[in-house]
Amino acid sequence: MLDRLRDLIPEPALRRLPWYLAYVSLLRERGVEYVSSTGIARGINGDPSQIAKDLSFLDIKGKTRIGYEVSLLEHKLEEFLGFRKCHKAVMLGAGSLGTALMQDSGLTNYGLNIVAGFDVNPALIGTAVKGLPIYDVADLPEKVRELGVEIGIVAVPVEYAQDAADAIVGAGLKAIWNFTPYRIQVPDDVVITNTSIYAQLAVMYNRMSCR
Amino acid sequence: MLDRLRDLIPEPALRRLPWYLAYVSLLRERGVEYVSSTGIARGINGDPSQIAKDLSFLDIKGKTRIGYEVSLLEHKLEEFLGFRKCHKAVMLGAGSLGTALMQDSGLTNYGLNIVAGFDVNPALIGTAVKGLPIYDVADLPEKVRELGVEIGIVAVPVEYAQDAADAIVGAGLKAIWNFTPYRIQVPDDVVITNTSIYAQLAVMYNRMSCR
Repeated sequence: MLDRLRDLIPEPALRRLPWYLAYVSLLRERGVEYVSSTGIARGINGDPSQIAKDLSFLDIKGKTRIGYEVSLLEHKLEEFLGFRKCHKAVMLGAGSLGTALMQDSGLTNYGLNIVAGFDVNPALIGTAVKGLPIYDVADLPEKVRELGVEIGIVAVPVEYAQDAADAIVGAGLKAIWNFTPYRIQVPDDVVITNTSIYAQLAVMYNRMSCR
Repeated sequence: MLDRLRDLIPEPALRRLPWYLAYVSLLRERGVEYVSSTGIARGINGDPSQIAKDLSFLDIKGKTRIGYEVSLLEHKLEEFLGFRKCHKAVMLGAGSLGTALMQDSGLTNYGLNIVAGFDVNPALIGTAVKGLPIYDVADLPEKVRELGVEIGIVAVPVEYAQDAADAIVGAGLKAIWNFTPYRIQVPDDVVITNTSIYAQLAVMYNRMSCR
């Protein structure tokens, strides 16, 4: 039922839900008990009717004139967004960005548990980053099975992005989080999410120069 | 003239240009001399006519039947995207994500030079991350002037996101790169770019559960 509901939510609405969650968590920490969609709109500079519509995808009802119970709304948002489940992931590429992400404990708050790193560089294989082992990429299929991994993260140099993705798919994983600006090609049954933080820089520089 | 041209490019096209750059750099490293928009389309799994249209915003002409000179196209893309200029930035929040980003040398390849970190935690102030000093947030206005900083990056806990942004605006900076999921509010003349990598996780989990 939950999965069916999630299936129906449009992606822009799904992308907005974490904003509401951030604000609602803040309210809960401040001891606020109830919040309306108008209250959320004020807090995050959003549109109240859009917020009400987005929240209608959740299995929660607000009370007239009072709004949503803050701690329940936080819980329902975390559950709906998949942040309350633990998703095991491996990092391909133990270079600068890869090890940076392996050290970001914030990810675990959002349900992502990076359990190991992989590289092709003999100088890195056998070392550890914040207690997480770096293995040879050749051992990926074996380790994925052993560790019960669901997600492969790609943070290799751009020229190896496709190879890394092929290795992840070859190891039987069905989800890839791609941090390179390369457009990785994968079979239809593999989910790919592209997060090119460097592309965001271009947008920012552009807006800066237009002012 | 360049700025005027950049003013006219639609944001979706601007966001695609870094993909082309990644592929073109790869071709240059492989010793390829010319590439057509069809060639780029094949390489990144894109639409040739869209690529040709996107590249028409650049000050470069392809030759009939041959295409663009690879090294020139790479140069023009980097220039257009602002990656060839050095943009000095400060990091607000020397926690997990903040220090991770300060350690990502990849950012400098895209024109972003993080020169210092700032925090409110006395245990962190006075320390250094990869040789970059961590200062007291109270010293932000002074350091921004001293170091010639243009951009403030926000990687603080979500409940301090607005405070951090206010400090950046108060220090006279006109550009904020927000890594928190909080919808920061800023004056109209301040550019804000939101990169919530955690929100991307929600989209990935959702797609995974729908398969």
